[in-house]
This record gives sequence, structure tokens and C-alpha cells, in this order.
Amino acid sequence: MKRIAVLTSGGDAPGLNACIRAVVRAGHYYNLEVIGVKRGFKGLIEKEFINLSPRDVSQIINRGGTVLLSAREERFHQYQYRKIAAQNLRDEKIDALFVIGGNGSFQGAYLLVKEFGIPVIGIPKTIDNDTYGTEYTIGFDTAVNNAVQAIDKIRDTSMSHERVFVIEVMGRKSGFIALSAGIATGADVTLIPEYPFPMHVIVDSILQARKRGKHFSIVIVAEGVASGKDIAQILSEKLKPYDFGGVRYSVLGYIQRGGSPTAYDRIIASRFGVFAVEQFVKGKENIMVALENGKVVEKPLEVSFGKIKKPDLSDFELNNILTL
Amino acid sequence: MKRIAVLTSGGDAPGLNACIRAVVRAGHYYNLEVIGVKRGFKGLIEKEFINLSPRDVSQIINRGGTVLLSAREERFHQYQYRKIAAQNLRDEKIDALFVIGGNGSFQGAYLLVKEFGIPVIGIPKTIDNDTYGTEYTIGFDTAVNNAVQAIDKIRDTSMSHERVFVIEVMGRKSGFIALSAGIATGADVTLIPEYPFPMHVIVDSILQARKRGKHFSIVIVAEGVASGKDIAQILSEKLKPYDFGGVRYSVLGYIQRGGSPTAYDRIIASRFGVFAVEQFVKGKENIMVALENGKVVEKPLEVSFGKIKKPDLSDFELNNILTL
Amino acid sequence: MKRIAVLTSGGDAPGLNACIRAVVRAGHYYNLEVIGVKRGFKGLIEKEFINLSPRDVSQIINRGGTVLLSAREERFHQYQYRKIAAQNLRDEKIDALFVIGGNGSFQGAYLLVKEFGIPVIGIPKTIDNDTYGTEYTIGFDTAVNNAVQAIDKIRDTSMSHERVFVIEVMGRKSGFIALSAGIATGADVTLIPEYPFPMHVIVDSILQARKRGKHFSIVIVAEGVASGKDIAQILSEKLKPYDFGGVRYSVLGYIQRGGSPTAYDRIIASRFGVFAVEQFVKGKENIMVALENGKVVEKPLEVSFGKIKKPDLSDFELNNILTL
Amino acid sequence: MKRIAVLTSGGDAPGLNACIRAVVRAGHYYNLEVIGVKRGFKGLIEKEFINLSPRDVSQIINRGGTVLLSAREERFHQYQYRKIAAQNLRDEKIDALFVIGGNGSFQGAYLLVKEFGIPVIGIPKTIDNDTYGTEYTIGFDTAVNNAVQAIDKIRDTSMSHERVFVIEVMGRKSGFIALSAGIATGADVTLIPEYPFPMHVIVDSILQARKRGKHFSIVIVAEGVASGKDIAQILSEKLKPYDFGGVRYSVLGYIQRGGSPTAYDRIIASRFGVFAVEQFVKGKENIMVALENGKVVEKPLEVSFGKIKKPDLSDFELNNILTL
Repeated sequence: MKRIAVLTSGGDAPGLNACIRAVVRAGHYYNLEVIGVKRGFKGLIEKEFINLSPRDVSQIINRGGTVLLSAREERFHQYQYRKIAAQNLRDEKIDALFVIGGNGSFQGAYLLVKEFGIPVIGIPKTIDNDTYGTEYTIGFDTAVNNAVQAIDKIRDTSMSHERVFVIEVMGRKSGFIALSAGIATGADVTLIPEYPFPMHVIVDSILQARKRGKHFSIVIVAEGVASGKDIAQILSEKLKPYDFGGVRYSVLGYIQRGGSPTAYDRIIASRFGVFAVEQFVKGKENIMVALENGKVVEKPLEVSFGKIKKPDLSDFELNNILTL
Repeated sequence: MKRIAVLTSGGDAPGLNACIRAVVRAGHYYNLEVIGVKRGFKGLIEKEFINLSPRDVSQIINRGGTVLLSAREERFHQYQYRKIAAQNLRDEKIDALFVIGGNGSFQGAYLLVKEFGIPVIGIPKTIDNDTYGTEYTIGFDTAVNNAVQAIDKIRDTSMSHERVFVIEVMGRKSGFIALSAGIATGADVTLIPEYPFPMHVIVDSILQARKRGKHFSIVIVAEGVASGKDIAQILSEKLKPYDFGGVRYSVLGYIQRGGSPTAYDRIIASRFGVFAVEQFVKGKENIMVALENGKVVEKPLEVSFGKIKKPDLSDFELNNILTL
Repeated sequence: MKRIAVLTSGGDAPGLNACIRAVVRAGHYYNLEVIGVKRGFKGLIEKEFINLSPRDVSQIINRGGTVLLSAREERFHQYQYRKIAAQNLRDEKIDALFVIGGNGSFQGAYLLVKEFGIPVIGIPKTIDNDTYGTEYTIGFDTAVNNAVQAIDKIRDTSMSHERVFVIEVMGRKSGFIALSAGIATGADVTLIPEYPFPMHVIVDSILQARKRGKHFSIVIVAEGVASGKDIAQILSEKLKPYDFGGVRYSVLGYIQRGGSPTAYDRIIASRFGVFAVEQFVKGKENIMVALENGKVVEKPLEVSFGKIKKPDLSDFELNNILTL
Repeated sequence: MKRIAVLTSGGDAPGLNACIRAVVRAGHYYNLEVIGVKRGFKGLIEKEFINLSPRDVSQIINRGGTVLLSAREERFHQYQYRKIAAQNLRDEKIDALFVIGGNGSFQGAYLLVKEFGIPVIGIPKTIDNDTYGTEYTIGFDTAVNNAVQAIDKIRDTSMSHERVFVIEVMGRKSGFIALSAGIATGADVTLIPEYPFPMHVIVDSILQARKRGKHFSIVIVAEGVASGKDIAQILSEKLKPYDFGGVRYSVLGYIQRGGSPTAYDRIIASRFGVFAVEQFVKGKENIMVALENGKVVEKPLEVSFGKIKKPDLSDFELNNILTL
């Protein structure tokens, strides 16, 4: 009987538990033994292995976070520790390592492939949706909905006080959350790292909106562009000559990562997990599961390395139309 | 200056308002006049036309229902009333009618094309997602999430009392909501109209689940298959010999149609609406907006007529794996 | 070291887990051993006792249902089984039994007091809020909010189709949920078991509302009055002469019982649980925890027996004003 | 026919619209004319008066914010502008001014009483619940639930990464939100302005929790104590010697003020509004509506002036027990 191991690595994302459950149950369905590795790469080094039966993953499909935990592990950057990790996997007679993680985790795991011949299968997750090679990463839909629900609440205050509200959303290098949240909440301006534009354009947009009869405005800024606080401060000065209810800001922060996953995240995480196991059963290895043209497919594990996935800039045009 | 009219027809769906807003704002962006028709085809006959400026659709992107209202209108089945509708559109100098509706509404509107040469552009919405020719219809994502959140709540009771719970979801002819909700909530059995199977299979599934250590079970049934009440009654008798906490049922009903739309429904409704107007500006008419391979495209308005969109039955296999 | 046992009995209610956690942690805080009894009275008879440490109740404060499970147990009506239950408690050296339950469960437990001298402390829970002697029972606030959120969704459909919607909420003998939900959603009519009125009054209310310019109406009916379906059918006939978008109904059902408890239910359940343990530490027994004038107090366990708690009928007057 | 005016003043709070609706409808019920004043005291000075019929407040009971808008108005501190406001009220033949606001707004309105004999009735709202003389102020329940739902989400991340999370909630001078949220989410430490304690106590609490087997901790801090960022920074240093997943912080901010009000806030806002109008009809003036021992009562308008409402410090003891 073959044995597979599964771990979650990097920042947590809603849908991780649904994916763990899918890997475990598909594993057993195809007569594999499934081992869970706790705390990501840290657990590989420290041999934190647990058996996972189908019942062990009951009642988790609707929970945020990851029951396998996640942790930073700087030691994995050193060959000697990766060697320990590989040895631990061999001692456990693991035939393949399933890594539910982002680009960075795939690169780490790829070293296990190259250096020690450990077969790896990657399942992409990150709330940022910025992994190259796949249209979707687990957690994005929930993160966007979390952001949208929060912004809907702030809109009440914004409207009541006729204010400009600057809302900082997650996205250090990537504007996917910001762009989607911007379209879904009707933000007058959306600032993303991939497409910077000068401050006077923002001010103009808000003044134009005011002229068109809008009594309040929402500005969404991805954290990678600037802090919401700084943007708010600049806006506050620039808008002082005009009769506004003032400028405020809010940093949505960690609430975007958590909570019960949306239906879509549960379903796609389940599909990804089952598909990953089925590819292994078919003899595939060193692949990444991906979504392409709306279908679940497999790609070489290294497909995303060194590449940048950029949002479609026509979405800015869309936003201009929608916020008319 | 060209003039377009927009109406919503059939059962309401979350995202209708986002779509109306998109049509109105895209219309003005492209220098069209936009007329709203209240109460669907009824308003066409009774000439309930209102001007819609970009400001008139403020603050609606996050609201369920339709600000243009919807109504049944049996008279539209008669030629004489369609003639009145067409004349009213001509009197208003409408250059195209945008119909946000389902298959039935498109067929109704198509008669205006054939009989009176009124150009029509269809935008598909139905929480059931069963319009042939498009991978997605506005409202489906919210409906599934509404169902999933409700079932998550019922799961608490089901688990606490170790019961079998039969949950009836919407879907008279179609199992899309049931199937998606089933995967997302880990239902042990999902019953859909397109793929009926005998009662003993259901009973077996539940008994098998019990043997595998599950102390409660969720059965999801699309309303088109049978009533949740009937299924529960039969199950109750069949399971009497076994030590269960009993069988209960719940009909989710109208809560699935309502509420603030999800981010996805707001975004896709916005994209559909803007795309529809842009096609009109390019000179297209008598088309339906559709999602294909994850992209927004246009198709002939009549593409969906007489065709049935069926769920992928491999999803049953997926569910079997996931509920192991 | 003294030992206490805790069980949950009857229908589940959001906040039970918060209360279990409070009893367990307060118990340990005051140097008691705490035993959990699974499946209510059934577990007493079948000796399903488990040790509960403070860590065993981690991560449950925000969960619906009850980790101690609940079950019907008809045998408890028989003396011979109560004797077994009492003996089991003595064998386990239990010094007091904490019953988190409703009126019926308190009456059952009271027999253990009378027949076998088992000290009992009752903590009132029921989503119906109809336990005499206390202003509040655990679960009510969450149930009302669940109902209100569901009705808010149905309102979207009701408004879009200009319909009359009949919504059946929980409450077999009691109208507390219906009344609160009615005020909170602006229902035009609210029907409760304690205060029946003839059908023509309902029809009149809706027609009056229509005359005042309301295009849709919500009727809330507690399940103890009649089924939503029956009320809808009658209304449908009576309203046929008038131009309405039709009458529909929805049965909210079990979604009212489940889901993560509200802040208030978590807090009051925690207060009740700690207070109950503190009373035991002070030497009190055979009491019920209660809320009186907004404060947590203790009362004789039998205070609620044979008494009926009725809603304040001035709330109807309030509703008449609010739905003007 | 008598005429009353109503305004909302100060920061917005969920439930304001329910209260406006109640004042308007109760006013008409008792044959009063009701005038809405836009933008609070600013609207008094600038004569922004609108007639409010019962239909004008349809569909707002479930909305956050205030349809009457709110604005800062520094000029109201000057006698000359208050004189204008009073004159405007007289010109409009207003018999009483209903102020839905906090302590500061009541003090402002009281000057209209003292200086110009304008009858005033105050209805207390503030999400902070810190108005002396009333057990409850409109908006508090929703704010606490908003905070609790956000913290529940952050808990997922906190648990998955075994981190300490510092969460800054609203409350510049008052710890009611922090305390309630702390009890409802099981926070290990809660810091409020009314009861400061040294940093080493916080560190100790977290280390003790770790020793008791807790793998993550939540620290809640009211904004009036210190910034979440500062607390997190200090904690991060102090905890460095121990093996934690790190310390993070999140500022919940404006999401606490917004969103659809809870059932309780809708109901209490409705009761307060109707009661206020009824007191006016009975001839009362210069009063504040209040909740006392769970009942709605009236008190002198100036009852809250110069007084501080403090949370019950026994809640800290409660929290110590609950987080054992």
C-alpha cells in the first residue's frame, strides 16, 4: 500500500481544511495511506507526522484555518535541514508529498524533488490569487467576500457622514483582491501595485465623482501600494478646499484571511485535492494542480517559478464605466 | 442619441441590481439614453417606462431583488399584447431591449425580434444556473452560498442530535444548486432531477456512512425530485430498525433567492451588463451574453432554446469520494 | 474534592457550548472535578460519563449545537430508569447535577431531587424564551437574529415581486420569536399562539397597508398557530380580488436553532454557567439560574413548573404603530 | 396639529434608521407632523428640513447608517449660531426637537432648552454604550457582534499559526465593547481604559495560558488604552524568548459601526423611538429615554452630563474564570 503525506504551508487561507479533507478521503478511496505533516516544513524536519483516517477530517470542510497548522521555518533554506526532511519522509516510507501552498512553498518543495528525488504534488492556495499558471488559488473567493462584506459596512458610515473612505486591503505584490473588491463595492478609485498612478489622478476622480452627484467615495488601496493611512492623509490635505465630510481610513487586515470558506472555495479546494490524488494514482508527479479556462488541469510544478501573474488591466476600464 | 431599454423578468436573483446598474452606467458611458421598464413584460405592455441616469442606480450594487421589479404577465403569450409592447417600444424610440432574464424570458423577447423586428440583447440570470449555452447565470453563486450557510446551521442540530437531516433546496428541473451545496457541505446523499436513483440506494448510503463512524447524515434533495418531507418520511420508516436520533427535514425555500449578492455575482453581473452594452455599441443584436471557458462572450439569442443544460455527473463520483 | 456533572437536554440551542465551557472552567476554577454526561438523560441511564478538563472545552464558545450531544429518552419517565440514573450518579460520586435545559428537562431532573435526593442546578435554555421565571433563556437572541436575517432575504423577493409573504417561524406554544422577529423586520401582521385573531383582521391589515402605499407585506406566523402554507392559501383566496403579485410562504425551520451564537448568547450563557457553579460552591442546590430585571439571580428549581410565560401584549400595539 | 423635528447627531450607529422610522411613524400615529433635519445640528443652522411621512421611512429598518445623515458642526458651540438654529425651529413651528445622539449631542441640545426654551427629547445612541443613566445605547449590540464576528475570523489564523493576536477595538474612553467582545470570544487578556494594568501582567497571562496548553492567545485592547500596534510590538519583544508563532495585530476600526443592525438594536431603537414620542404626547419634555433594569423609562435630559458610566469590574473576574 502506497503512502502519501500532506502539509499546509505559508499563510493560512480559507479552504485549506476542505483541501486536506479531500486529499485524505481521496487517498483512502484509492487505497493509499495518508500521513499529515503538522506545521508545514517545520514538521518535515521535526518529524511531526500523524496518521489521517477519513474520520479524522470530519467536520472541517466549513472551517477556516488549517487543522494541520502552519509555521515559518527558516531552516528549510539550508541544505542540511532539507536533507533531514527528506530522510524523515523516506523513513516514513512516503511515496509522495502533497504541498498545499503558494509559490514560495512550491519552490521549497521543488528542492526536495531536485536534491533528493522526493515526488511532490502542489496544490495552489493563497488569498492573493497571484500564483502564475493557474486562474485560481484556494482562498481568494472567501478573501474577496470578506473584504466586500467589510466594505459594505464601512459604506454605511461613509454615506451617513458624506466622507471619503480609504480602505487598505491585502495584496503586497498583487492587486487581485483590491480589483475584485473595487468592482464589487463600486469603489471610485482602486490602487494596485501593478499599475501605480499619481495622486492627482485620485483626487481628480473623487472630485469628478462629487461633481456627478456622489456624496461619498470609497478608495481601495492594496497594501503593497501604500498604507491606507498615508493615502488618507494626503487626500485629506488635497480635499480640504472642498466641502467634504472628511477623509477616514480603515485597514481590513487579517479578517480577510479567516472565517468559514465560501461555497466556491470549499468546492474548488475539494476538486483540487481529489484531482491531485488521482494524478498521483495515475503515476504523475512533480506537478501543480491548476485551473485553466475554468477546468482543473495539471502543470509542471515549476511552471509558476519566476513568473508574475498580473491582473487584467481592462478591469480598470470596467471600473471607470461602472462608477460613472 | 440612441436609446436602450432594460427590464428584469422572471424570478428575482441576487445580482439583478448590479446588472441593471452596469447596463445603465455603460449606456451613459457610451452616450446612450437608458430607459428602465418596470415589472418586466407587464411594464412593456403598460408602458411603465422611466428614465435612468447613472445616479438613479446608486447604492444598489449590494442589494438583493430588483429595483425595476418583476411580475408575471400571462398576456405576453398573446400576439395582440406583444404588438402593444412593440408599439410602446417604438413610440419610446427604443433602439434595443435588454432583457435580464432566464430561458423563458428570452423566448418571450425573441418573439419581439421575430414578429416586430425589435432588437433584443439577453443577459442570463437564474439562481438555478440551468440556462443552456452559458456556464454561469447571475444569482447562482449567491443562491449556493445561501443554501450552504443555512445547511451549516442545520448541521449543528443534526450533529447534536445525531440525526439524519433531509434538506430540500431549489431546483425544479435542475440539480445545480443541490450538487454544489452537496459538495460544499459534505452531504452523504444528493438527489437531483437529472439523475434519479432508488430509495434503497439512499438508505444504503446512510447506513454505510453510519458504519464508517458518521453519527449524523445530511441528505440534499432538489425540489424537482420529491419533497423533503416525503423523503424524510420514507427514510424515517426505513431507518427505524437502526439506532438513529431520528429523521428531520427542512425546506430552505425563498431564502436562497435573496440577500446581498456575493462578490462573484456582483462582478459577473457587472461584466455581463457592460459587455452587453458594448456589443450593442458594436452593432450586435439578438444575442445572449454568456460565460464560456471562463470568458464573457456573445452567442445567438436563441442558443438556449429547447436545449437542456445538465450538470456533470462525474460530480457524483466526486461526492462519493469526498464523503468517504 | 467535590464532583459535579453537567448535561444538555432537549432541543439544541445556540449558546449551549458556551455554557458547558463556563460550567467546566468555573468548576475547575473553584477546585471541582467536572464530569460531562453525553446525550442528556440517556447518558445518565447508560453511564456515558466523561471527564472534562478546561482544555476539553477549548474552541467551542463560538459553535452552535452541543458537544455533549442531546437525545430523546422516553425511559426517563419510568421510575426504574431514574433509579438507575441516580445510582450511576452516586457511583460516580457526583455531588450535583447541572442541567442545561428547558422546562421539561427541569421537571425530569426535579424527580431526581425528590425521589433520590440528587442535588440539581438548572440553567435555562430554549430558543423559544418561554421558560417562566426568567426573562431570558439561552439561544433566544441567536434564534431571533437567524429568523430576522432570513426574513431580510425574503423581503428582497417580496418587494421585487410585490407579493405578500407568509413566514412561519418556530414557537409551538409561544410567540416570543414571532413577536421579536415581527418588530425587527417590520412585519405587517404577526400571529402568535397566545393571542389568536380571526382571518379577516389579517386580510384587513394587508389591505390597509396596501392603501397606505405598501407594495408588499410580510406576515409572520408562529408554528403553533397554523402552518404558513395554510395561512398563505387562505390569504391567497381572500386577496384574489385585489391586484397583488400573489401570496407565497416560507417555513424557516431548523435554521433558527443553529449557527454560531450571537455575542449576547455567548455572554449570557457564560454568565449563567459561572453563576450556577458559584451558587453550588456557596452551598445552594435545587435552584434555577434566571435573569430578572436584567440581573442574573437564582430561584427555586420548581419556579417554572406549571406556569406559562406570556409575551407582553403591548408589543402588538407597538407593532401597529411601527408598521403604520 | 403639533409638529416635531428629529435629527441624528454624532458618529453613526446601527439602529439609527430604525429609530428614525419609529419616531416618524409614532408621530403620525399620534397625529403629529414630523420634520426631519438633515446633517444634525448643521441642518438646524442651515435649515435643512424635510417632511417625513410614514412611507418616507420604508425599507430602512434593516439598514446601517442614517438616512438623515450626520455631520460635525463646530459653529453650534457659538451662541449666535444656536440662536439661528432656534429661530429656524420657531419659523418651522416645531414644538419639540428629538435628538438621537450621544452625551455630547444632548449637551448641545440642552443649550437650546436653556437659552431659547426649545423643548428637547433625547434618545441615546452610541456604539460605545457609555452614556450615563441608561443601561443601553442604540448600536452597541451590533458593534459587539461585528467585533465578535471579525475576531472569530482572526481566531482561525491565530490558531493555525499558533500566534498571539492583539486586536484593537473601538472605545476611546470606554471599555464596554472590549469587555463584551473579550468574554464572547474567550480573549486571554482584555485591556480597557477604565482599568489599566502593567504590561508584565499581560505577558504573564499569555505565558500562563501557554502553560495550561493554549497554543494561541487573543488580546483585546480598547483604542483608548494604546494602539494595537504598540501593544503587539512590546509583546513581541517580551515573548521572544518563548517559542511562539509570533505576535500580530489587527485594528477592527469602522467595520464595528456599520452594517445591518441586529434584531436587538432594531427592537430597542424602535421601542426608544415610540416611547419618546409617547412621552411628548403626554406632555413631557427635556427628557432622555433610558433603559433601567431592563425597562424603557424617561429621565431628565441632563442626567448624563458630567457623569461617567463604568463597566462592572467583576467582568474581569468572570473573564479570568472563563479563560482558565
